Amino acid sequence: MAIDPDSTPRDNLDDADLLELVEKGLAELVDGIDLAPLLHEATRYALLGGGKRLRPVLTLRACHAVGGAINDALPAAVAVECVHAFSLVHDDLPAMDDDDLRRGRPTTHKVYGEDVAILVGDLLQCLATESALASPVEPGAVAAAVMEGCRRMIEGQVHDTVGGFPTGMENELDRLALVHRLKTAALIRASCRVGAIVGGGDPEELDRYGAAIGLMFQIVDDILDETQSTEHLGKTGGKDLATGKRTYPSLLGLDGSRQEVSRLESEAIGSLEGLGSSADPLRSLAHKLAVRTR
Amino acid sequence: MAIDPDSTPRDNLDDADLLELVEKGLAELVDGIDLAPLLHEATRYALLGGGKRLRPVLTLRACHAVGGAINDALPAAVAVECVHAFSLVHDDLPAMDDDDLRRGRPTTHKVYGEDVAILVGDLLQCLATESALASPVEPGAVAAAVMEGCRRMIEGQVHDTVGGFPTGMENELDRLALVHRLKTAALIRASCRVGAIVGGGDPEELDRYGAAIGLMFQIVDDILDETQSTEHLGKTGGKDLATGKRTYPSLLGLDGSRQEVSRLESEAIGSLEGLGSSADPLRSLAHKLAVRTR
Repeated sequence: MAIDPDSTPRDNLDDADLLELVEKGLAELVDGIDLAPLLHEATRYALLGGGKRLRPVLTLRACHAVGGAINDALPAAVAVECVHAFSLVHDDLPAMDDDDLRRGRPTTHKVYGEDVAILVGDLLQCLATESALASPVEPGAVAAAVMEGCRRMIEGQVHDTVGGFPTGMENELDRLALVHRLKTAALIRASCRVGAIVGGGDPEELDRYGAAIGLMFQIVDDILDETQSTEHLGKTGGKDLATGKRTYPSLLGLDGSRQEVSRLESEAIGSLEGLGSSADPLRSLAHKLAVRTR
Repeated sequence: MAIDPDSTPRDNLDDADLLELVEKGLAELVDGIDLAPLLHEATRYALLGGGKRLRPVLTLRACHAVGGAINDALPAAVAVECVHAFSLVHDDLPAMDDDDLRRGRPTTHKVYGEDVAILVGDLLQCLATESALASPVEPGAVAAAVMEGCRRMIEGQVHDTVGGFPTGMENELDRLALVHRLKTAALIRASCRVGAIVGGGDPEELDRYGAAIGLMFQIVDDILDETQSTEHLGKTGGKDLATGKRTYPSLLGLDGSRQEVSRLESEAIGSLEGLGSSADPLRSLAHKLAVRTR
């Protein structure tokens, strides 16, 4: 990861600045390595195709919240986004969720074929580690935390795709919470954790925050899948209902799900009590994620 | 990676001892983490299903050759084998090589389904990084070298599967050599490199050796695919011929391919000139790999 060493550290960045920083970091990573042209093109397609960039923004905000310099956290932020991008490419494959649309565009395997999509996902996981190892602060701890989040996410995928729940876990809501915690929240929590590590904080300082907004994020996703159109979402909507998938709305209803979102928002914001105004962006992000409509 | 801290370093190990060490290290890695039961079982199936263990043995031998303690290189050795195992699981998928047989047993996706096989491959790449980061010596450099080998391997897969060769590279033998160097030799070279790093040597000290035996290994594979039965190989034989795949025998003939094997064996052994008797196992390994029949 090449980050301009002469760039002035800027720690009062607004959301648009952070997104620009992340997009630049992602592009520099994939353009900065020597890659076969086709693989380079397909990886750019998968990685640079828009998206909310929630995870890398969390890493940057988490670093700032515990007193670190935002720019130092960019390689770690890029790493978590690479893990997320790899998971999307593999999840969309016909053998998995079989999705044709992602971020308003055809999925990677629809454009480049299944074989290339499998390899692009594999490569993105490589790049995640390589970017984490380029962290200027604690590269080993950053890489380990990113990979732990990645491993948990994969576990969650297994539960989501084929089941295999722990013996004795019969309750549907328990199973769904486990899937969401592993498949979605683990990497979101890891995104906060690597920010805290780079920022010089206690690695676990933002774990409660990350776990709460991670689960909340997925519940909101479940709600949006049921209430919003494909066109609005940029990915196939109504899919959970059509496939009979276990979701929060299917188990708790829309109102019950919204109550759970509110509870998790409070939990997330409450967990930041010990932090001062540097954590304000994390507080407002928790609220934005609770009320998002796409 | 838990390695018994009280175990006496043993540096005069024969091949059987090394294999036992590697098998134990692989099993301890996959059994030592908390994993969903189904994912644990499928990952064990993919990782512990036999195999030559060439790459991890190379790592251990390389570490010893440059003066290091073999036991120190076990996490690095386990890491390169995890990368290799992940690549086999993904390569065998229907969208890739579509192979039903590996190491004399049904491939992972034939037993657990394509979705689980994709996830097992993803997990094995995670475990590779996590094991590399557990290296007692230079974990960051070890993880970076493993991931560079992994990235090159994936590039080679892209060339092998869909082409996309650099502009101007029209010669068939040049293309094939590029595929073999990336797809097979890069990880074998990385296996030697991480051994050299852990052993305290110059990281590039064994690069020529690793590159030579890596290319040689794949040419021998091409020869065996044409000359040996499926039963003998434990994987589908005659496949290259049946699919019209570009191979060394198809371009140079069997005799020409065997001459190239001899040349690379000499190149590998010649590259070790500066090393003493500690490199003898690497010398005899180069010969064994040149004359292997499975």
